Amino acid sequence: MATSEVVNGNNTNETKGKTITCKAAVAHGPGEPFVVEKIVVQSPKKMEVRIKILYTSICHTDLSAWQGENESQQAYPRIFGHEASGVVESVGEGVSDMKEGDMVVTIFNGECGECMYCTCEKTNMCEKFGVNPMKKEMCDGTSRFSTIEGKPIFHFLNTSTFTEYTVVDSACVVKLHPQPTATLKNLTLLSCGISTGVGAAWNTANVHAGSSVAIFGLGAVGLAVAEGARARGASKIIGVDINPDKFITAQSMGITDFINPKDEVKPVYERIREMTGGGVHYSFECTGNLHVLRDAFLSVHEGWGLTVILGIHTSPKLLPIHPMELFDGRKIEASVFGGFKGKSQLPNLATKCMQGVINLDNFITHELPFEEINKAFDLLISGKSLRCLLHL
Amino acid sequence: MATSEVVNGNNTNETKGKTITCKAAVAHGPGEPFVVEKIVVQSPKKMEVRIKILYTSICHTDLSAWQGENESQQAYPRIFGHEASGVVESVGEGVSDMKEGDMVVTIFNGECGECMYCTCEKTNMCEKFGVNPMKKEMCDGTSRFSTIEGKPIFHFLNTSTFTEYTVVDSACVVKLHPQPTATLKNLTLLSCGISTGVGAAWNTANVHAGSSVAIFGLGAVGLAVAEGARARGASKIIGVDINPDKFITAQSMGITDFINPKDEVKPVYERIREMTGGGVHYSFECTGNLHVLRDAFLSVHEGWGLTVILGIHTSPKLLPIHPMELFDGRKIEASVFGGFKGKSQLPNLATKCMQGVINLDNFITHELPFEEINKAFDLLISGKSLRCLLHL
Repeated sequence: MATSEVVNGNNTNETKGKTITCKAAVAHGPGEPFVVEKIVVQSPKKMEVRIKILYTSICHTDLSAWQGENESQQAYPRIFGHEASGVVESVGEGVSDMKEGDMVVTIFNGECGECMYCTCEKTNMCEKFGVNPMKKEMCDGTSRFSTIEGKPIFHFLNTSTFTEYTVVDSACVVKLHPQPTATLKNLTLLSCGISTGVGAAWNTANVHAGSSVAIFGLGAVGLAVAEGARARGASKIIGVDINPDKFITAQSMGITDFINPKDEVKPVYERIREMTGGGVHYSFECTGNLHVLRDAFLSVHEGWGLTVILGIHTSPKLLPIHPMELFDGRKIEASVFGGFKGKSQLPNLATKCMQGVINLDNFITHELPFEEINKAFDLLISGKSLRCLLHL
Repeated sequence: MATSEVVNGNNTNETKGKTITCKAAVAHGPGEPFVVEKIVVQSPKKMEVRIKILYTSICHTDLSAWQGENESQQAYPRIFGHEASGVVESVGEGVSDMKEGDMVVTIFNGECGECMYCTCEKTNMCEKFGVNPMKKEMCDGTSRFSTIEGKPIFHFLNTSTFTEYTVVDSACVVKLHPQPTATLKNLTLLSCGISTGVGAAWNTANVHAGSSVAIFGLGAVGLAVAEGARARGASKIIGVDINPDKFITAQSMGITDFINPKDEVKPVYERIREMTGGGVHYSFECTGNLHVLRDAFLSVHEGWGLTVILGIHTSPKLLPIHPMELFDGRKIEASVFGGFKGKSQLPNLATKCMQGVINLDNFITHELPFEEINKAFDLLISGKSLRCLLHL
């Protein structure tokens, strides 16, 4: 590299156009504790953005990828993390919608704005920057990260946020407007979980006022669905989870009724049908469990009920639904990133959060310094945290 | 019965309020040839209508029920048939939307107009008169048909049209307006197959102009989908069938491209993706075969493609779809009676048919006198007829 090098640069003028040496939490193997170590971050290339990360949080997708659940996706050393907010440090050639100092959040499901998906109203897929767990490098097939010794470090989910500085395609960076001077910390959650849940309720299901909703799995995503449904005026929001500890927080997100399947003799869907005169309008499956998926499907009302799948089902088993069951008028579909086209639609969601339409406060249950990332993972694994925010 | 009896009454004034003795094609056991014999038809009770059938045709649902494919649904002697048109002979107490002499078609998927489904825009189900293959009597638990010896004859699918006279709930009778003096014969097909196919394209999928469509199975329903898609301005309508004889008729219904899976080395969905730049907008599964269903699902485009299931899948196997495949933005749903609310929406479809927007002529491939009903069944079984119209 012809560029000169800066260590721990905090001033954009000092770092622009140069490689940066900074701290990152590097995973060296599946399930191995993160090592917070010095790495080298290159300058952003054409249509790329280098971001100084201020906050990052951990999602189950980071957890399963770090644990190496899907061997074909393994690549080490690697920088995981995809939920983050920060400030643009510098932009590469051709980036015109952002500049140094802009407050931004990263998105793993990008929006190039030009492909057949981005120009279609029906989808938030993107041909070039869609969700791709196999992708481990930038589009040119190289990495912007390396160890101090010069060994490339792989990227993750278009983002890689467990680092003081990251380089991301501009399609995967959302500039917030108005700029959230006071609330950037909370808006970190729009990077993934909150947008996924709220968007599933708003965009995919289009929950209507006075409707009934059942949410299976009360993690951050399920609770974000509840928050979205509450904001839409749903009158009954039933939360289903086998961990009764989750019910306390859940109430503040709009959950009106709780079902712990362990306490039930009947199938959960029968209980829900009894509670709602035949079934809810909308159910959301946020667990990735096929039995739960079937319960969710059968808990919606004949004729108009819709089940939205949010949970990741890694096993190769088939949908636990008989074709004829669809003739009862129950529908099922999946939602990715809440159906939001990130760059164009997240700023509006951010505004709604700043206005208090969506309340993010209760989702951040823990905060830790970045160096304690392994502790933050433990909190997620033990089910103690919804979101633990790491401060950089 | 206190009512007097009339034999083969043709004049309403003579028959009203009396039992009628007339000819019907009675099934005495599963798969046994129909016996055209004299039966007795009672007067319509409260909210019922007695219809003099003029035309009836045969659909695969009649065929599978007659063959006794589902043992739990067997009930003999029985009068099958559900596609028919005719003239109201008399109405029971409380029927105000029809009178003697009105030209009508029967519908197996009724519309009471008052239940939670009928008053909901999202569904064409009906709480009281929905599709119920187990139902074999009128709502009061008795039959309006009996043998000459007085033995009750069971009803079928809310209709029972293989008879000169039938008694049907008014919720299952559609009065056509304007009255189709010249075209009642063709409009018989609106009773089932044509409405199912056209409605799947118009109501369930909402096929748009310039779109691409794939139809799996080119029987009457599949071809009605093609006719509906053609009327909507779809630019590519791919027909898939293993019987190349069907391709000739299909062209007149708007099919632009043919695929015979027997001629293909690749999976059909791959061929369709190649032909359409990644997949069609809409696919329709009209075969009831699970392998075909998977092909239909995979033949639609990522991000926005929709598969509509029309075929009846009698086996208890699961949907051949992995939950994660839904995350590619492909959707699947089923369509019953084309999503039409029969009584309120079929008159408009009938008008469209009379205007030539939908052309029914090519669907009636054979016409026979009622007495030759067994021959008409043979034609359907051998795949030689789309619809054979029986004249009464």
